[in-house]
Amino acid sequence: MPKKKATPKDKEVSSKLTELGKEIAEEIKEGKPPAFKMPVRSLSNIHFNEKKQQLELGKTYSKRSFMNVAHARKFMQTMLVAAWVRNELVDEGITTSLRDMYYALKRTIPGTKENTVEEQSESDPIVVDIETMLDVLREELHLNADVRGRVVGNVVIKDRGDTVDWSKLGSGGWSIPSNVENIEFKSVDADYILLIEKNAAFERLHEDKFWVDQNCILMTSQGQAARGVRRLANRLSVEHKVPLYIFTDGDAYGWYIYSVIKWGSMNLAHVSNRLGTSNAKFLGLTMTDIEHYGLDNYTIKAKDIDLKRARELKEYPWFQAPEWQREIDKMIKSKKKAELEALSSKGLRFITETYLPEKIGKKDFLP
Amino acid sequence: MPKKKATPKDKEVSSKLTELGKEIAEEIKEGKPPAFKMPVRSLSNIHFNEKKQQLELGKTYSKRSFMNVAHARKFMQTMLVAAWVRNELVDEGITTSLRDMYYALKRTIPGTKENTVEEQSESDPIVVDIETMLDVLREELHLNADVRGRVVGNVVIKDRGDTVDWSKLGSGGWSIPSNVENIEFKSVDADYILLIEKNAAFERLHEDKFWVDQNCILMTSQGQAARGVRRLANRLSVEHKVPLYIFTDGDAYGWYIYSVIKWGSMNLAHVSNRLGTSNAKFLGLTMTDIEHYGLDNYTIKAKDIDLKRARELKEYPWFQAPEWQREIDKMIKSKKKAELEALSSKGLRFITETYLPEKIGKKDFLP
Repeated sequence: MPKKKATPKDKEVSSKLTELGKEIAEEIKEGKPPAFKMPVRSLSNIHFNEKKQQLELGKTYSKRSFMNVAHARKFMQTMLVAAWVRNELVDEGITTSLRDMYYALKRTIPGTKENTVEEQSESDPIVVDIETMLDVLREELHLNADVRGRVVGNVVIKDRGDTVDWSKLGSGGWSIPSNVENIEFKSVDADYILLIEKNAAFERLHEDKFWVDQNCILMTSQGQAARGVRRLANRLSVEHKVPLYIFTDGDAYGWYIYSVIKWGSMNLAHVSNRLGTSNAKFLGLTMTDIEHYGLDNYTIKAKDIDLKRARELKEYPWFQAPEWQREIDKMIKSKKKAELEALSSKGLRFITETYLPEKIGKKDFLP
Repeated sequence: MPKKKATPKDKEVSSKLTELGKEIAEEIKEGKPPAFKMPVRSLSNIHFNEKKQQLELGKTYSKRSFMNVAHARKFMQTMLVAAWVRNELVDEGITTSLRDMYYALKRTIPGTKENTVEEQSESDPIVVDIETMLDVLREELHLNADVRGRVVGNVVIKDRGDTVDWSKLGSGGWSIPSNVENIEFKSVDADYILLIEKNAAFERLHEDKFWVDQNCILMTSQGQAARGVRRLANRLSVEHKVPLYIFTDGDAYGWYIYSVIKWGSMNLAHVSNRLGTSNAKFLGLTMTDIEHYGLDNYTIKAKDIDLKRARELKEYPWFQAPEWQREIDKMIKSKKKAELEALSSKGLRFITETYLPEKIGKKDFLP
């Protein structure tokens, strides 16, 4: 099978990986104990950058040294993964999953009873280490994440040689892949992006041709947004200056989905600048919507776990805007949450014809 | 918003629902206690039809009567759902989810303290009742199920006025919608359909352009196959006489995925003829593959729950073929299971270049 043509990004990533190996080889040749430095990813080194409105890593580094018994295994695994990713994935033009990588790397080291990796839980964090250390995205290492999510709208892309028009995909829409780095946007005609937590609402709006009337891009994350969805929303919003509105259930889980899309996540604080879209706005469902649209009979009693989570979010530096503090307080006080399906109690086209046009028209968002 | 044009199926479903209402109204006018009959869906009335190779309902019916205190609430709910589905969905050309339906129907009956429905777990089974009673698919009632799954291949469809070419969708592929009833196949050029449990393997094969070389349709269910995936596989395979090969992990869960796609499920025995594809074949991963391809080091120890499930499947009438009995016995004896990612231990293109072409070339399938 002929190799795929390496992209400029492939060449850059390949040489970063080569550089890492060279430095280690140099140290060994010089008789020094081989070691490398990497940013610490623990809570103590995760900060909220107020100006950028992003979670990010601080300046604390740790050293991983081969001669340190506590580091030796992880050191070996880092070299193993880095070499394999360069040789088998990036240079070969092959993409795969973390699970496949684990199977591909697992073996007994000759002359020992030691396995290279025992469980996938050992090899996964190594990829994040390399992501952080070399400032590359996992997708740029040709390691795909889980996929979920669909999109429709007046957008034409070029992807793997195909020209795909997101406005002509019938009821299905375009499946958002894990890796959207190599997608080329040929034309983007949209006043905003509406990213919805639930697929059922996406399908309802798609059926009503909401995105045609409103000239928007309609996207669903189908729950917590996968990396591909976050990165696609980021690229569309940042590269094409399209506002991004997030529409989730009115509960702590919905708020969390929003916060990850906007500010980034603690797990992935090292890539917030590419996965997070700091100008995103929260459209709903808000506690005020419940009062304003008379949805009170269709709310759900918040459980202890919901309230606990709400109290936690209330403390996060990125939820300190007065609007968010009020929103969270209202939920804690009323002990109620609401799903976006509650709007269907007003009729199945209420969301298309009334709720969304009103909210978007008035720019009634939380920051 | 203008109504969508009713399809012939919409008209048929609408008149079936009207007929149901008319019969009840007739009984009331005649002073008879209103009641209707429906096939029993409990285990005692589910049979395996050897000839059709399908799970199906037997001939036992039950009566749901308004004047029976034990039936009155469900009777009311059946009428409520049937009327709402006809008036708000089928006749309006609107599609929605079961969750939205629950919200749309929930209210307090005037003059009482009784709610029409308390929980979604009350309204969901009513839809299955109507599906069974009127022999219509839930999707034909305009109630969508969860969506998962993607597809690529040399197929051109027409859907909602759009012509979609599954061979020109870049890395993403076409998102399989919940309702594939109205899809029109303009051209289907494929020697077989390969339906894969896991998206990562789908992406790997898609990247290698496996479906181009092999002239096949590549589909992933992303776990247990959603109704849309099952129905799409059925339509393609039956209407266009394309063999369907299923590729799952080598474990009881993978076998179960296969059995649902092929023979139907006990929950949905009333629609096996449309969701099940009885000529489907199981491609792998088989216990023999593990020996043949030397994957033993990459197997996983089966847990008690795996073995228990395997013993259950072994007893099912639809797993009585000697090939399946041997397969299940091998697993129970070896206490091992294997994921399809185990093939990556042989190299990332082993699946594309060796495993699949060999298995398909030799027609090495389980029935």
